[in-house]
Amino acid sequence: MNRTYIRDIPRHLGSELLLQGFVENFRDGKSMAFIVLKDITGKVQITIEKEKLPQLLPALEGLTPDSVISVTGKAVANEFVKLHGIEMIPSAIAVESLAAALPIAREDIPATKRKAAVEKSGIDLRIDYRWVDLRTDRNQLMFKVQSCVVAAMREFLLQNNFLEIHSPKLIGAASESGADVFSVDYFERKAYLAQSPQFYKQMAMAGGFERVFEVGPVFRAEKSFTSKHATEFTGFDLELSYIQSYRDVMQLQAELLTHALQKLQAQYGEEIEKRFGLPVIIPTLPFPVITLQELYAELKKEFNYTPEEGECGDMTTEAERLSYQWVQQKYSHEFLFITDFGAEKRAFYHMRDEHGVPQGYDLIWRGVEITTGAQREHRHDILKAQAAERGLAEDVKFYLEFFKYGCPPHGGFGLGVDRLTMLLLGTHINETEFLFRSPKRLTP
Amino acid sequence: MNRTYIRDIPRHLGSELLLQGFVENFRDGKSMAFIVLKDITGKVQITIEKEKLPQLLPALEGLTPDSVISVTGKAVANEFVKLHGIEMIPSAIAVESLAAALPIAREDIPATKRKAAVEKSGIDLRIDYRWVDLRTDRNQLMFKVQSCVVAAMREFLLQNNFLEIHSPKLIGAASESGADVFSVDYFERKAYLAQSPQFYKQMAMAGGFERVFEVGPVFRAEKSFTSKHATEFTGFDLELSYIQSYRDVMQLQAELLTHALQKLQAQYGEEIEKRFGLPVIIPTLPFPVITLQELYAELKKEFNYTPEEGECGDMTTEAERLSYQWVQQKYSHEFLFITDFGAEKRAFYHMRDEHGVPQGYDLIWRGVEITTGAQREHRHDILKAQAAERGLAEDVKFYLEFFKYGCPPHGGFGLGVDRLTMLLLGTHINETEFLFRSPKRLTP
Repeated sequence: MNRTYIRDIPRHLGSELLLQGFVENFRDGKSMAFIVLKDITGKVQITIEKEKLPQLLPALEGLTPDSVISVTGKAVANEFVKLHGIEMIPSAIAVESLAAALPIAREDIPATKRKAAVEKSGIDLRIDYRWVDLRTDRNQLMFKVQSCVVAAMREFLLQNNFLEIHSPKLIGAASESGADVFSVDYFERKAYLAQSPQFYKQMAMAGGFERVFEVGPVFRAEKSFTSKHATEFTGFDLELSYIQSYRDVMQLQAELLTHALQKLQAQYGEEIEKRFGLPVIIPTLPFPVITLQELYAELKKEFNYTPEEGECGDMTTEAERLSYQWVQQKYSHEFLFITDFGAEKRAFYHMRDEHGVPQGYDLIWRGVEITTGAQREHRHDILKAQAAERGLAEDVKFYLEFFKYGCPPHGGFGLGVDRLTMLLLGTHINETEFLFRSPKRLTP
Repeated sequence: MNRTYIRDIPRHLGSELLLQGFVENFRDGKSMAFIVLKDITGKVQITIEKEKLPQLLPALEGLTPDSVISVTGKAVANEFVKLHGIEMIPSAIAVESLAAALPIAREDIPATKRKAAVEKSGIDLRIDYRWVDLRTDRNQLMFKVQSCVVAAMREFLLQNNFLEIHSPKLIGAASESGADVFSVDYFERKAYLAQSPQFYKQMAMAGGFERVFEVGPVFRAEKSFTSKHATEFTGFDLELSYIQSYRDVMQLQAELLTHALQKLQAQYGEEIEKRFGLPVIIPTLPFPVITLQELYAELKKEFNYTPEEGECGDMTTEAERLSYQWVQQKYSHEFLFITDFGAEKRAFYHMRDEHGVPQGYDLIWRGVEITTGAQREHRHDILKAQAAERGLAEDVKFYLEFFKYGCPPHGGFGLGVDRLTMLLLGTHINETEFLFRSPKRLTP
């Protein structure tokens, strides 16, 4: 018999069904037993009148929470059943996998007369047993959301003539600065793990691919311990040729995110609001834009905030936070593009205008920077000079070659998929990564 | 002015257009100059009557092949123009990027009276200058094909309730056997690069995700020098719960590939046949299936082929090749599923039946193995025993934990995206990877 998803039961009341899932709850009374069965689509109550169904008793014997069972039977409407007013009357139950006593507590269980309070295990212990932790509605929704957002962004880009590429993560030279790069034993020499596909998506521009994106792991050997940093995360990067300026990149990004949020809202908006208490807000186009200098003037006026000496060319964490309050008040918007950063704070490959101003931007969403984007310098001699300014030579030599034999003007940006999910749901990155990686964590 | 794609010119004859692309060819005569301009969608001839358009002469001065230009002007029909009977009469030409003399020859140019024969550079030199090599129609088609196939497979899976996950590539223990794994300096200890997302997609099954797929890099520290091996390639992996047997996995894979080939044929079938001389054949369902023992009996009968002693439990390279001839003759089919391998030749985590036969398969396409798939052993005690049989203990300890707290029956398979493209187009893996990685190659 084909399996039926629990969410589809209402369409099949009265028919013989096969349901399969995890035992979320099991109450074994003297004459009655109740199982709450959960699959990826929902939950249903299985009701067993023991006297009527003695053949089921062996399966119930020793059944534990989180065991996996297959249940055959008929689902019927019953107004006394709290869970959707439906119950399943089984004719057979098979235990596919019997769960040992769970090593973590996934929910706070309030103390009652008969039960001591159980505190939800800390995030570290929950990650140790991530596969048990992932079974909660909350965590499964998180990854449905992530899958949905990534799919929506891909869809938008494929419709807009982008090609998806897969660039190597094993590279021969420590990219950009040499700091914060993992090294790999590669036969008789050293390789490095790519910190981003930056150089390679630009190589695709030199290769005439015109518009590319890549979704893949990026590696950062940084000893950062914050709620938004990880040593490995999923990057969503794109690059496009024949732009007139970095404003074209900004516009594309705004349209891309708007498309993704529309799709997400339609599919999971209600559930997200219910479970995470955050609305999915579809932004209006265009997104607000402000120069860094103007923003700092506004933050001084509105919040009496001034960055420390030497930090004026870049956004501080506090400025990111305040800029969210500001953009909400001023534009009723969650996004804010910031332009005109100090050249010394930007990558050497950002194009600069005749006054030396980098032709790029940061995008702040809900008070956190989610993107740095820019038009790239595609003119070999200028790029080489900008690299030399930073003391970069040998490590970027192979990269500079990309611009010698003809290269279209181009620009692009990168996003962290995990950070995006984190901001969408108001949580931390160690929860939004399928498996969190930090200087202290390499397992499971 | 907005840029027009060259393929769209016929819809805009007579209007003022902006075209942008690479100079594929430039003939500079006394009174006339001709440029063949190429973008990602096609090619067009730019015709310049020098006397009429003196303002364009500075841009033509020193113009080199592969330079990037922007051309404004009007396109007109002209039956004497070989290239689609259309030419562009420019009013302005801007050189965006002037190309230095090209370091590689991308095409064989036959000798004529006036020109010496140019031999196409070898693949190694072409990979050294990959971004120049990628500009050919052939290579761009290759990556359009790859992007299209991956998008079609994803589309099929998302429609079939799969979630896309991103599992870590940095792992704490050398997976499976410890051989052929790259090690990474990870702060004060060693990490390893994942050889496949196998363990983690199974973890997602234990996490109740039911159906997942992942597209990402996999790393193999193998000193293999063949036309189909690489040290890093793009894996397409999936896993699904609540299967009845590995036959469900085979069926899903057959449907998935059929869907992808349908999409590909519709979009690029003609171009592929024209440029690579290979038809895109949409397979019939179901794919032919044979046991390994029966296949060897057939190969003996048809081709008098017998594998060496000790190789009977697995497919040999020669058997793969011959099986293609056999399946074409017998079923007019390009695909062949082979089942009932020797247990000693299969991974320890493959489920076995009561006779010890692994519940899995290989899929051979055009004479090359593209997949190993199986139902996995989800019962903790049996899995543990099968691991111990191989002497695996400490390295798989974390993996065995996934099956202790309830896990649905499940199975899955993996595909190499680059190998798939290679077989589609009849080429080698060093050409189908965006950037090839081998024991001897880490650049560019």
